[in-house]
Amino acid sequence: MNDSSLLLSIAVLGGTGKEGKGLAFRWARAGYRVYIGSRSAEKAVAAANEIKEMLGDGISVEGMGNLEAAHEAHIAVLTVPYSAHRDTLESVKDELKGKILVDVTVPLVPPKVAMVQMPSAGSAAQEAKQILGDDVQVCAAFQNISHEHLLDNADVECDVLVTGTSKDARAETIKLVEAAGLHGWDAGPIENSVVIEGMTSILIGINKKYGSTHAGIKITGVER
Amino acid sequence: MNDSSLLLSIAVLGGTGKEGKGLAFRWARAGYRVYIGSRSAEKAVAAANEIKEMLGDGISVEGMGNLEAAHEAHIAVLTVPYSAHRDTLESVKDELKGKILVDVTVPLVPPKVAMVQMPSAGSAAQEAKQILGDDVQVCAAFQNISHEHLLDNADVECDVLVTGTSKDARAETIKLVEAAGLHGWDAGPIENSVVIEGMTSILIGINKKYGSTHAGIKITGVER
Repeated sequence: MNDSSLLLSIAVLGGTGKEGKGLAFRWARAGYRVYIGSRSAEKAVAAANEIKEMLGDGISVEGMGNLEAAHEAHIAVLTVPYSAHRDTLESVKDELKGKILVDVTVPLVPPKVAMVQMPSAGSAAQEAKQILGDDVQVCAAFQNISHEHLLDNADVECDVLVTGTSKDARAETIKLVEAAGLHGWDAGPIENSVVIEGMTSILIGINKKYGSTHAGIKITGVER
Repeated sequence: MNDSSLLLSIAVLGGTGKEGKGLAFRWARAGYRVYIGSRSAEKAVAAANEIKEMLGDGISVEGMGNLEAAHEAHIAVLTVPYSAHRDTLESVKDELKGKILVDVTVPLVPPKVAMVQMPSAGSAAQEAKQILGDDVQVCAAFQNISHEHLLDNADVECDVLVTGTSKDARAETIKLVEAAGLHGWDAGPIENSVVIEGMTSILIGINKKYGSTHAGIKITGVER
């Protein structure tokens, strides 16, 4: 970690996919120092260059390997397919000690992606907690956000429910949600992650049944 | 079942509680023949009389025991506390054969009601399916609706996600949702019920943290 940094820094692990790149774009735009990580440093550099071209000078985004990105950043966000979830976490575990890991993973089991099918830990986020141990705070967030509108300036009409292993970690994660231009809600302990991750399967089913590509959810009945 | 009935009839089992009475009120108002069931027929009659007084003549609502209500109706809705879930279902099981049971139960485990804690079947609705067997279609719905505004004419700013053991049963349940003046969405197979039931714990937590009494959810990004 670069303690002399004036900017809060975020690693987006697996940040070359659509969701990760979209979030990296929004955080770079908000003034964060963003490190895009990937198993392929080359692909990560390409993704970083793409964001630089879109946003122009004065932003901070770099591509590198996942391990290096986890090392550099104050907070790490994981946006890999579920099939790479365990391996990626094990590979960066030591670099995450004392930090927060925000897990965006949805444990979809093809071909029935519109059916909720959780791992034995209860959810991907709880599995991450098991893998990372007590030295890392784990939050779950962003699973219900369609990547479609992350890379442009459109309003994303979907709230972000944030679960996590501590109230403080959830509050830090909600700051990231707001920096990405979205509205975040404290959705309670990590045990509640099954609802957020599972909601993605319901939204996939609704998209298919009702002819959309970006079904989302909003919390109602509460003052914003 | 009274096959000569011209009106579709609904049994609201455990219909003397706030949620059940609110739903019974809305269905009676919509012109359904409503049978309020309770372990205490006396309490059920009192609840039915209360609704009659509110709605006046021309509506059809009667109170009786749960078994009789399940026998009379074409479709049954279960609104009991989780502690009475299994016993109530076992007591009416034979009367539900060939019908649809709409389970409104949220498996809250006090005192941590803002933490998702599901039974071993995966959800209360899946547990109902295990108890009732293959002769009964089971749906889950209405868990996220605050009872607060069911008994008046206010708009309820919360959608109803409907899961169930078949597409046809979900479609029938969505008709009941609409008759109650709410918007329903097909949320897929019964395995997805954990999301709807668990969302209630998240909404309880949001109510507490953000100072509301009727947090709800709306589906966005899809044409209504």
